[in-house]
Amino acid sequence: MAQVSIVMGSDSDMPVMAKAAEILDKFGISYEMRIISAHRMPDTFFEYAQTAEERGVKVIIAGAGMAAHLPGMCAALFPMPVIGIPMHTTSLGGRDSLYSIVQMPSGIPVATVAINGGANAGILAAKILAVSDPELLAKLKAYSAEMKDGVLKKDAKLQECGYHNYTK
Amino acid sequence: MAQVSIVMGSDSDMPVMAKAAEILDKFGISYEMRIISAHRMPDTFFEYAQTAEERGVKVIIAGAGMAAHLPGMCAALFPMPVIGIPMHTTSLGGRDSLYSIVQMPSGIPVATVAINGGANAGILAAKILAVSDPELLAKLKAYSAEMKDGVLKKDAKLQECGYHNYTK
Amino acid sequence: MAQVSIVMGSDSDMPVMAKAAEILDKFGISYEMRIISAHRMPDTFFEYAQTAEERGVKVIIAGAGMAAHLPGMCAALFPMPVIGIPMHTTSLGGRDSLYSIVQMPSGIPVATVAINGGANAGILAAKILAVSDPELLAKLKAYSAEMKDGVLKKDAKLQECGYHNYTK
Amino acid sequence: MAQVSIVMGSDSDMPVMAKAAEILDKFGISYEMRIISAHRMPDTFFEYAQTAEERGVKVIIAGAGMAAHLPGMCAALFPMPVIGIPMHTTSLGGRDSLYSIVQMPSGIPVATVAINGGANAGILAAKILAVSDPELLAKLKAYSAEMKDGVLKKDAKLQECGYHNYTK
Amino acid sequence: MAQVSIVMGSDSDMPVMAKAAEILDKFGISYEMRIISAHRMPDTFFEYAQTAEERGVKVIIAGAGMAAHLPGMCAALFPMPVIGIPMHTTSLGGRDSLYSIVQMPSGIPVATVAINGGANAGILAAKILAVSDPELLAKLKAYSAEMKDGVLKKDAKLQECGYHNYTK
Amino acid sequence: MAQVSIVMGSDSDMPVMAKAAEILDKFGISYEMRIISAHRMPDTFFEYAQTAEERGVKVIIAGAGMAAHLPGMCAALFPMPVIGIPMHTTSLGGRDSLYSIVQMPSGIPVATVAINGGANAGILAAKILAVSDPELLAKLKAYSAEMKDGVLKKDAKLQECGYHNYTK
Amino acid sequence: MAQVSIVMGSDSDMPVMAKAAEILDKFGISYEMRIISAHRMPDTFFEYAQTAEERGVKVIIAGAGMAAHLPGMCAALFPMPVIGIPMHTTSLGGRDSLYSIVQMPSGIPVATVAINGGANAGILAAKILAVSDPELLAKLKAYSAEMKDGVLKKDAKLQECGYHNYTK
Amino acid sequence: MAQVSIVMGSDSDMPVMAKAAEILDKFGISYEMRIISAHRMPDTFFEYAQTAEERGVKVIIAGAGMAAHLPGMCAALFPMPVIGIPMHTTSLGGRDSLYSIVQMPSGIPVATVAINGGANAGILAAKILAVSDPELLAKLKAYSAEMKDGVLKKDAKLQECGYHNYTK
Repeated sequence: MAQVSIVMGSDSDMPVMAKAAEILDKFGISYEMRIISAHRMPDTFFEYAQTAEERGVKVIIAGAGMAAHLPGMCAALFPMPVIGIPMHTTSLGGRDSLYSIVQMPSGIPVATVAINGGANAGILAAKILAVSDPELLAKLKAYSAEMKDGVLKKDAKLQECGYHNYTK
Repeated sequence: MAQVSIVMGSDSDMPVMAKAAEILDKFGISYEMRIISAHRMPDTFFEYAQTAEERGVKVIIAGAGMAAHLPGMCAALFPMPVIGIPMHTTSLGGRDSLYSIVQMPSGIPVATVAINGGANAGILAAKILAVSDPELLAKLKAYSAEMKDGVLKKDAKLQECGYHNYTK
Repeated sequence: MAQVSIVMGSDSDMPVMAKAAEILDKFGISYEMRIISAHRMPDTFFEYAQTAEERGVKVIIAGAGMAAHLPGMCAALFPMPVIGIPMHTTSLGGRDSLYSIVQMPSGIPVATVAINGGANAGILAAKILAVSDPELLAKLKAYSAEMKDGVLKKDAKLQECGYHNYTK
Repeated sequence: MAQVSIVMGSDSDMPVMAKAAEILDKFGISYEMRIISAHRMPDTFFEYAQTAEERGVKVIIAGAGMAAHLPGMCAALFPMPVIGIPMHTTSLGGRDSLYSIVQMPSGIPVATVAINGGANAGILAAKILAVSDPELLAKLKAYSAEMKDGVLKKDAKLQECGYHNYTK
Repeated sequence: MAQVSIVMGSDSDMPVMAKAAEILDKFGISYEMRIISAHRMPDTFFEYAQTAEERGVKVIIAGAGMAAHLPGMCAALFPMPVIGIPMHTTSLGGRDSLYSIVQMPSGIPVATVAINGGANAGILAAKILAVSDPELLAKLKAYSAEMKDGVLKKDAKLQECGYHNYTK
Repeated sequence: MAQVSIVMGSDSDMPVMAKAAEILDKFGISYEMRIISAHRMPDTFFEYAQTAEERGVKVIIAGAGMAAHLPGMCAALFPMPVIGIPMHTTSLGGRDSLYSIVQMPSGIPVATVAINGGANAGILAAKILAVSDPELLAKLKAYSAEMKDGVLKKDAKLQECGYHNYTK
Repeated sequence: MAQVSIVMGSDSDMPVMAKAAEILDKFGISYEMRIISAHRMPDTFFEYAQTAEERGVKVIIAGAGMAAHLPGMCAALFPMPVIGIPMHTTSLGGRDSLYSIVQMPSGIPVATVAINGGANAGILAAKILAVSDPELLAKLKAYSAEMKDGVLKKDAKLQECGYHNYTK
Repeated sequence: MAQVSIVMGSDSDMPVMAKAAEILDKFGISYEMRIISAHRMPDTFFEYAQTAEERGVKVIIAGAGMAAHLPGMCAALFPMPVIGIPMHTTSLGGRDSLYSIVQMPSGIPVATVAINGGANAGILAAKILAVSDPELLAKLKAYSAEMKDGVLKKDAKLQECGYHNYTK
C-alpha cells in the first residue's frame, strides 16, 4: 500500500518527478508512480484521484507544465494534501505552470513548490507524513544535518584552497 | 435545446459572462447558463461536460479566474469547440487566468479570448455557428457594419466639434 | 476548394504552421497554405482576407510573432472564425506575440491557442468544422481515444519497468 | 498546546492571516498566533522557530510580503511542514512575495498557497493534520460538501431568475 | 493641409491623444485628427493611410491599446515616420499595447513612445519636422529652456521653504 | 557642509524622498536636498554631480521613476556611493524604474533599494557613513532595537486581545 | 558631414548596430559611428551629444542594454530625433533595456524600436530624413516593394513545392 | 582582519562572487570569503553574521539565487552596509532573486546591484570604504579613468577600421 502517489501528465516530466521518487526511496516511504493526464483521459484520472484514499494514499505529488491542471484537479477530488510541482517551460519559463498551480481558489489549496522542484516535493511529502511519524521525523533531521555538513565541507575547501583554485 | 452553454465557476464572474449572453441574445442563439465549479463539485462538473453534446450543445463558453481550470477541463470532456475567458485578477491582472487557459497542451485546445472578453466570447461562438448557418453569418456581417457606423459617427463628431469640445 | 486557410507572415513560422497542416491532413480537411505579410504587402493581404469567404474558406489559421498583427487583421476582414497562433520569440518568449493576438478589442475576437501551438490550432479548426460535420466529429473522438491510449501505454511501461529504467 | 502556529512579520498582514485562523477555529484545531519579524528581531524569531516543535507545533503557517523571508526561514529551522502565504503588494502585485516564498532551494521546501490565500493556508494545515486524524478528515469532507452546496444554490438561483435579475 | 495626422482607434484614447494635439497647437504645426479603427473599418482605414501622403501628411501619430495594431498597420501603408502611443490598460498595465506597437518586424518600424505618452508623441513629431525646419527647431530649443526653468523654480522653492513645507 | 545629497528629478517624487530626509534628520546627518532633472537640465545636473565631492558630499540618494536615469548618471559622475530609489509607476508598477536603476553595467554600480523605499535609502546612507562613525553606528543599533520593540508590543497586544479584536 | 550619428555604449552592441549602418549604406545616407559610454565617459559623451547638431547630424541612433541610459541622455542634449535600440539581455530578455529607453518622461521622447531592432532603427532614420528628401522617399518605396517581392517569391515557392518540401 | 566579507549560499554562485573578490584584490582591500547557507545551516549563519562586526568587517557582500534570503538575513543581523547580488536563474531569469533581495521592508535595506553583478558589488564595497579612505578613493578614480580609456581605444579602433572590419 502506497502512502504517497506521484502523478504526472506526461512522461516528459519524468526527470523532475524522479527527483521526488528518489527522496521517498531515501526515506523509505512507500509510493506509487503514475502517468495520467487529466486532459487526455479525464475518466481514468477521476477514477485514479477518487480511489486514492482507499488505496491508502496520504499525500499526492502532482507535476504539470503550461496550463497545469493536474495538481488542482487532484486537490478537487482527494481530501488530503496535494503537492504541486510547476514544470519549467520554454516560452514562459514556468510562470504559466506556477500560476496555474499556485493560484487556486479559496477552498482547494495546492501546496506548491518551486519550478522543477521535484526533490522539494518529495521532502515536503516526507515532512507531512512526519507530523505523525517520529521515526521519519528523525530521518528528516538527519537529512538536514547532512545538508549542513555538505556546505561546511565546501566552505572548508574554499578556506583551504582559495577561490582561484576552488573550481579547478 | 441550447446551442451554446455558458459556464462559470463562480458567480463573481457574472458581469463578464453576462456580456457573452447579451451577444447570444442579440443574435438569437439559444443557450443555457450555468454556475458549476470544476474544483468545488467535480462530479457535477463531469456530468455537465460529458452530457453537453447530447443536450445539443455545439459550443461551450467557459470563464474562470486565477488557476483557471474550467475551460481546459471542458475541452478535455467536450468534443466540439470550447471558448475560454480569462478573468481579470487583482494581484496578477489576469495573467494567471490567461496562462492557465491559453497554454493548453497539444491535443486539447481552448479558443482563448482577451482578459474579461465576455462580448468577444459571444461573438466567437456566433462565428463558429455561422460556419454552417448563412442567416447567422448575415447577422454577423450586419453587426460589423453597425460597429463601423458607430466609429464613423464618433469621427464625424470629432471633425465637427474638435478635440477640445469632444468629451464635453 | 479549401475549407481552412493557413497563413503566416514569414516562412520562419513554417515549422509551427506545418503542425497545423499535418493535423488537417490527418483529418482529411482541405486547406490552402499561404505566406502573406500584413505589414510587407498590405494590399495583397487585404485581397487575400476579403476573398477568403468566396474561395470557400470557413476558418483561417493565422500565425505570427512579435507585434503579431496578422491574426487580428484577418479577423477584421473575414466574417468566420480566425484562429491565432502566437510564435515563440527570443527576447520576450512569445509574450509579445500572445498579447498582440489575444488582447483583441470588443467586436473582433481571435481564437488564440498556446505559444507555438500549431497542432492545437489544427485541432481547433477541426472542432469548429465538426460542429456541422458528424463524420469529422467521429474522427475527433477517435483521435481523443488515440491520445488516451498513448498515455495508457506509457503508464503501463512505467509500472513494468520503474522510473529508473523508464528513460533508458 | 497549539498544533498550528500562525506567524506574520507585520500586523498589516492580519486581515489575510485572520482568514487562516478562522478556518482553524471552524475545524477546532488549536493554534497560536504571533507577530514576529525575521528581519526586525532575528533572535526572537530564531527562538520562536527553534522551540516550535517542543511547544507541540506540527505545522507553521507563515505570511509575508515583498522580500518575504519569514516562511523560508521558518522552513530552515522547523522540521515539519511550513505553509507560506505571499502577500499582495502594491507595486508588484505580490509577485515579489510569491517568488520569495515559492522558489526555495532544494532541501528546504515551503508549501506555498495563492497570493493572499489565507483561507487556503488554513485548509492546507487541516489537510496535513487530517493525514493522521480521521475525525478531522471527516470534517474536511463535510466542508467540501458545504462548498458544493453553496455553488449548487447559486446555480439554482440563476436557473430560476436568469442572469438579468441575478445580481439585483 | 495637415503636416501631422493624429489617429486613434477609439475615442476612449482621446485624453491621451489630446496631449499630442496640444503640443502641435503650441508649436503651430498643422494637423488632422481622426477616429478610425483598423479592426472595425479596415477599408476606411486603408483608404485613410494610403492617401495620407497625398494629403500632405509627413508624420502619423497613432495611439492604440491592448492588441494595438493601428500604428503598425499605418507603418505598413504610409512611407514616412509613424509614431506609436501604447495606451495604458487595466489588466496588463499597457504591456500588451507596448509590445504590440514596439516589437515590429524588420522593415516596418514604428517610433514608439512611453505608455500614455501623448505629449512626447507630439514633441517627437515636432522634432522630426524640425530636421528640415530651422524655425521649428528654434521653438523646440525654447521649449527645452522653458522646461529647465520650470524645474529650476521648483528647486528654488524647495531651497527656500524646505521639504516639510514644500507640498503645503 | 552636507554629508548626503538627496536629489530627485521631479517634485512628484517628494513624498518618497521626504522619507529619506526624515531618517537623516532623525540620525542628525547633514544633507542637502535638490530637484534636478538629468533630462530637462543636463548641464545643471552635470555641474551638480561633478561638484558634489568638493561640497563635502559622501553619499548621494537619487530617486527617479520610469526610464530612471538620474541615479545611474550620478554614479557616472560621483566617485562615492550612489543610492537609487525606484519610484512606483502607474502602468508598470515601478518595474521600469527598478530595471533602469538596478541593471547598471559593470563598473558603475548603483546601490538600489525597494520601489518607493525612501526610508531604506536614508538608513542605507546612514549605514554607509557609520562604517567610519562609531557614534552613528550606535544610533543605528538603537534604531534597530526600537524597531524590535515596536513589533514586540504589537505581538503582546495580539496575545492580549486576540485577532478578532486586534484591528478594532 | 554626417546626417546620422550611430552611437553605442559598448562594442558588444556592434552586431545589432551594424544592421543600422548597413541600411544607411544601402540608402546612401552619410553617417558617423561611435562607441561612447554615457556612464564610463560622461564628459566625452556630453561633448559628443552637444556638438552633434553643429557637426550636421539630423538624427541620432543610440543603442544600449540593461539600464540603458544612452538614448535618453542623447535626447536630453540633442534637439532633433533620437532613435533608441534596446539590446537583448540574458537575464531579462531586453525588458530592462526596453523600459529604460521607451519610458521617457514627458518632454524628452526617444523613438524606440524593437529589441535588437538595428535594421528598423536605420529605416526609421531614413524615413525621418525622407520627410524633406523626395529622392530618399522614392528609395524607401522601392525598398518596400522589394520586401513585398521577397515574400511573394516565398509564397510562390510554397505553392509549388508544398510545406513538406519547403524547408528542404 | 577582513574589511569585507563575501558570502554565498552555494558554491554554484562562485563564478559571480569571484568577480567581486577580483575587484577587492585589485583595490587591495582585505576580505574573507565564505560559503554559508542561511537555509541549510541557520545557526552557523547566525553566528557568522552576528560576529562579523567584531571580526572587523565593515561591508558584507552576499550573493544568492531564487528565494534569495541570504542578503536580507545578513542585513537583519549586521549593522553596517550589506550589498546583495541577485543570481541569474534558469526559469525566471533572476527576477526571483532580484525581488527577494531588493524588495526589503522598511528598516532593513540591502544595497542591491544588477543580476549577476559581481564586479559591481566589489566596486560598491570599495566606494563605501572610500568614503573614509582618500587613498582608496584615488584608486577608484584611477579605475574610472582606465574604464574610459578602454572605451576610447575601442572607438579609435572603430574610426580606423570601420564597422565591417571591427569584429574581425
